[in-house]
Amino acid sequence: MTKKQESETILFKSYILEDSTYKGGGKKIVMPDGIEVHKLSSNENPLGFSDKAKEAITRATNDLSLYPDNTDIRLREALVRDFQNELSVDHFVTANSGSEIIDIISKVFLSEGDEIIVSQPCFLPYTAFTRWMGATAINVPMTPDYNYDLDGILKAITSKTRLVFLASPNNPSGNYIPYQDLNTFLSKIPSHVIVIYDEVYRHFADAKDYTSALPFVKAGHHIIAINSFSKTYGLAGLRVGYCYAPKELSNYMRKICKPFLLSSLALEGAIASLADTAFVEKTVDLVRTERSFVLAGLKELGITFWPTQGNFVLIDPPVEAIKFTSLMEQQGIMVRPVGVFGAPGKVRISFGVRAANTAMLSAIKTVLNN
Amino acid sequence: MTKKQESETILFKSYILEDSTYKGGGKKIVMPDGIEVHKLSSNENPLGFSDKAKEAITRATNDLSLYPDNTDIRLREALVRDFQNELSVDHFVTANSGSEIIDIISKVFLSEGDEIIVSQPCFLPYTAFTRWMGATAINVPMTPDYNYDLDGILKAITSKTRLVFLASPNNPSGNYIPYQDLNTFLSKIPSHVIVIYDEVYRHFADAKDYTSALPFVKAGHHIIAINSFSKTYGLAGLRVGYCYAPKELSNYMRKICKPFLLSSLALEGAIASLADTAFVEKTVDLVRTERSFVLAGLKELGITFWPTQGNFVLIDPPVEAIKFTSLMEQQGIMVRPVGVFGAPGKVRISFGVRAANTAMLSAIKTVLNN
Repeated sequence: MTKKQESETILFKSYILEDSTYKGGGKKIVMPDGIEVHKLSSNENPLGFSDKAKEAITRATNDLSLYPDNTDIRLREALVRDFQNELSVDHFVTANSGSEIIDIISKVFLSEGDEIIVSQPCFLPYTAFTRWMGATAINVPMTPDYNYDLDGILKAITSKTRLVFLASPNNPSGNYIPYQDLNTFLSKIPSHVIVIYDEVYRHFADAKDYTSALPFVKAGHHIIAINSFSKTYGLAGLRVGYCYAPKELSNYMRKICKPFLLSSLALEGAIASLADTAFVEKTVDLVRTERSFVLAGLKELGITFWPTQGNFVLIDPPVEAIKFTSLMEQQGIMVRPVGVFGAPGKVRISFGVRAANTAMLSAIKTVLNN
Repeated sequence: MTKKQESETILFKSYILEDSTYKGGGKKIVMPDGIEVHKLSSNENPLGFSDKAKEAITRATNDLSLYPDNTDIRLREALVRDFQNELSVDHFVTANSGSEIIDIISKVFLSEGDEIIVSQPCFLPYTAFTRWMGATAINVPMTPDYNYDLDGILKAITSKTRLVFLASPNNPSGNYIPYQDLNTFLSKIPSHVIVIYDEVYRHFADAKDYTSALPFVKAGHHIIAINSFSKTYGLAGLRVGYCYAPKELSNYMRKICKPFLLSSLALEGAIASLADTAFVEKTVDLVRTERSFVLAGLKELGITFWPTQGNFVLIDPPVEAIKFTSLMEQQGIMVRPVGVFGAPGKVRISFGVRAANTAMLSAIKTVLNN
């Protein structure tokens, strides 16, 4: 080994060095004049975001030369109100996105050689961000109809397992975990394992046996519930997220939260968004209504899709996924092929406003007829 | 050990669990009506921030429901222009503050048992954020007149050392490292060590032998230069920072940069700020002029202070530091005691606009006369 190679071996961690940087979706397309673009590729909020949040952000923009609050306590107080005092400020950890919560979890709970369990198809950061701490991801794939193999996950747990990632509703497949199944599963989880429960799409779920992590956090289970302001609150561009967990876990996580972690704009925007419950209701109503509309339309077109509790649906496109995406783009409709999530050949379509959904269904029809 | 204790030992890292969360400064005070408050405690920009940045942020606020760019490439391109093409996009890493850069550096370069070297008094995150990765900080204190003991640092380097933190100008002491001293120092640094060079106050330095890290990065030394948009650009509330380093280091660091790391507002605000060179000039002129004014005033009052290249000065207050701070606050002047930085009994005062500085000097006079 040369001296340079030697110092590189000392300085660089192989599991980071060999990482192919994860790139999110959200590519922008430019369409010829006259063709309207409907972006149904990133699960964004078609209603935008709260006017009250916009006012709060605009107000805070005037004072940007001053440091923000050095802690997130006002946001955590707002979250306590949003959870109707069922939790306290100690239960919450906030960050610059739900993804950053995954990063914080990885940093405090993972060391080189640890294992985590994911069930593909799933959100890419589960494997990417945990790998950066030297952990190995074990995949216990979803069943062919996109449900969790919860028994398979329990069997895959070893003494090295630290985290198990579940998402409900799951991105990109839209499935959820019924209350009883989660309850049974958690009762069998050994004490050296924490369940990371990604519920960023929770507001959109309307299944009777859907559950957030709330009852399980209150019962003190080793579960951390990831939430985001990017979906229901429509603040994807602002980057704010949070989690709640039993205090034993949340207090420990907050140890590594930097002062001034959230910008003034993120703080004020998130606080105002939580207070604007009318906007949340409007968003939830729209998503549920459009979900029914789109699923009925897909059924009519004979497209294979899977039941969804999210603001998106996973489909088996009538032509090869990349080709389908391209044919849709030519008609101004952006959708997301999700092979990279672990659903090869499948495509995820977000629900937009009615005009966007109608245009999307019509574009699929055109693909079918060609 | 009970089963609960056992699982806690497995799940929690002792060096994080025992950490007392670092709280930044920036406490807000409320004054009786009629007393104007001058905040000279956080090294903020007394001119605010660029109007062009404000326009860019306001424009971007309209689209907050959309995800931001998934990479920071446009900001890195703007940085290349700001560095007049002396560096390329590959040399830069951006983040949500200069502090977050320290966090990224810690994550990619540190493992449990590693050592880092700091020279107190210094910025608290050097020790706090590195401890979260299990590293131990070795303190090679500044000399009594607040200069780096560079020979002492070289002697303190062991096979476990990974990072050496230098700041020029240094916060809170205002001292800098002359070009020749840094050049000699870097030539003696072994290849398993990286120098972290915090230059967030660099624009304010006017000493002839002051140097940024630029020539050393271009020469390929193991040095990473930390920069911020909080000072010169006046965007403390927005949280944006960056570093530049030899590509070998920066490309490695970017491996763990999350997609959508920067909010749309941070991206647009930072890009617009870099383009507004007139605002930067105005800020730099003000700081240098007011620095001369304040230092002359302190001298006239017989206050002991140390030479400074920053937008602040370290003083030895005429009465005990906490009492001094309180007596100043009663007169509407916020200053910062910096015992916690490793300068016991000393106080840091930021330079404001002329009115603020005059009020500050007058308040010290009142303290002296009582």
